Amino acid sequence: MKLATIRTADGTRAVRVDDDGAVELGHADLGPLLARPDWRAEAAAATGTVHPLDGLDYAPPVPRPEKILCVGLNYATHIREMGRELPEFPTLFAKYHRSLIGAFDPITLPAGSDEVDWEAELGVVIGAEVRNASEEEARAAIAGYTVVNDITARDFQYRSVQWLQGKTFEASTPVGPWLVTDAEPGDISCTVDGDVVQKADTGDLVHDAVALVRYISQIITLAPGDLIATGTPGGVGHARKPPRYLVEGSAVVTRVEGVGECRNVCAP
Amino acid sequence: MKLATIRTADGTRAVRVDDDGAVELGHADLGPLLARPDWRAEAAAATGTVHPLDGLDYAPPVPRPEKILCVGLNYATHIREMGRELPEFPTLFAKYHRSLIGAFDPITLPAGSDEVDWEAELGVVIGAEVRNASEEEARAAIAGYTVVNDITARDFQYRSVQWLQGKTFEASTPVGPWLVTDAEPGDISCTVDGDVVQKADTGDLVHDAVALVRYISQIITLAPGDLIATGTPGGVGHARKPPRYLVEGSAVVTRVEGVGECRNVCAP
Repeated sequence: MKLATIRTADGTRAVRVDDDGAVELGHADLGPLLARPDWRAEAAAATGTVHPLDGLDYAPPVPRPEKILCVGLNYATHIREMGRELPEFPTLFAKYHRSLIGAFDPITLPAGSDEVDWEAELGVVIGAEVRNASEEEARAAIAGYTVVNDITARDFQYRSVQWLQGKTFEASTPVGPWLVTDAEPGDISCTVDGDVVQKADTGDLVHDAVALVRYISQIITLAPGDLIATGTPGGVGHARKPPRYLVEGSAVVTRVEGVGECRNVCAP
Repeated sequence: MKLATIRTADGTRAVRVDDDGAVELGHADLGPLLARPDWRAEAAAATGTVHPLDGLDYAPPVPRPEKILCVGLNYATHIREMGRELPEFPTLFAKYHRSLIGAFDPITLPAGSDEVDWEAELGVVIGAEVRNASEEEARAAIAGYTVVNDITARDFQYRSVQWLQGKTFEASTPVGPWLVTDAEPGDISCTVDGDVVQKADTGDLVHDAVALVRYISQIITLAPGDLIATGTPGGVGHARKPPRYLVEGSAVVTRVEGVGECRNVCAP
């Protein structure tokens, strides 16, 4: 089942994206839907207004998640090729919801940055409140997967030892186009102006979705709608020699097999 | 004017704390109040139900801020005494609202941590939406000041290079008791079991409230209710020889002259 939030002339609508149309679910976006204990059954059974698939305007699946958690250094192959040990604990940092954009929206280039970079990531959306989750509880608390590009202003990221300021520029982080509830995520890739710059297997995550939910929920309650961006594989522009960055007009395609694809063009 | 959110038998209430009682303002908490353009006049003029001051149960002033931004390494004297240069840019990291507690609530000791530490901080509460703020706009966007203790699990903080996981444990961060709209913050101090462990002048901030609002608003829109914790001075327990940490029963008093005081006891 694919669930999304679309923008209409009358505001946003939570929808189920079927093969022949997007069916309204009776909520303004996926946030309030996911807060309902029976959201899966409710979404599956909904028979609201149907929108044609052509020309749907996708908002982030959950436009205002309570929390966005991002993970650094989480692809084993990439960590090993950099000569590092696999980390025992995930590297966690945050992002604020005003940085999120829809799957086909323009990426607002961070003003003042000359080093805007891509980071294709598998996104995990939470579908139940969970604290100190067992493996089983963690699995059950995952609503599904989405696609994220953790667009990063490297110069701001490294202005201090904490990355937040390079990670949360307004309207810069594509998410979507939907949340897939029954996907088995496959390869992840990022393409910039037609060049494949990142490609990896999401099965290569050191801390996978269930492990991350378990770990984070020991620290703080995860809530319906929360987004976990699970980290990016090798191939970012900053690590290239010479480095390569996003500029006005750069076309970024972020794809996770079995989940979906974001296509975004950079704009001032 | 002192504004607070109190817990009553019928849920939380935004109040104005006068010398002779706390006057209800017609909002569930300060969040929706601060979202109104005319909140200052509205709060000053309110004549709702009055609660006696004795026994008020304070929630965090804004229980669910959209954003909590924390600043590291921001007291000039402390930075210089450590032999470092004053930083050109603030070090910014995040906290999630579920970590917040009221001014007199128990601090929930982070489970699994043996290194729980104090960090007395001046808190800045935002009272208007602001982006790319000028100095004047930044000043106008500050609703006022509050008291924060950025309780930190040092072991979790240093499990990775990003501090978030040591900074955002559930129900661990005292804030309050109120937001003071017309204060001139003076000395900041932290007392643990009667020992003064931190004492500094909030005028010693490298990046002061206005500078922080200007800087952050270049990255992302600040919104009414957002909380900025402006950093802690020297004297944290982790830097002592031997180190000193908070344990069950530790009594923490966090005070900013002219603003207020939090008193919290650590509990499992």
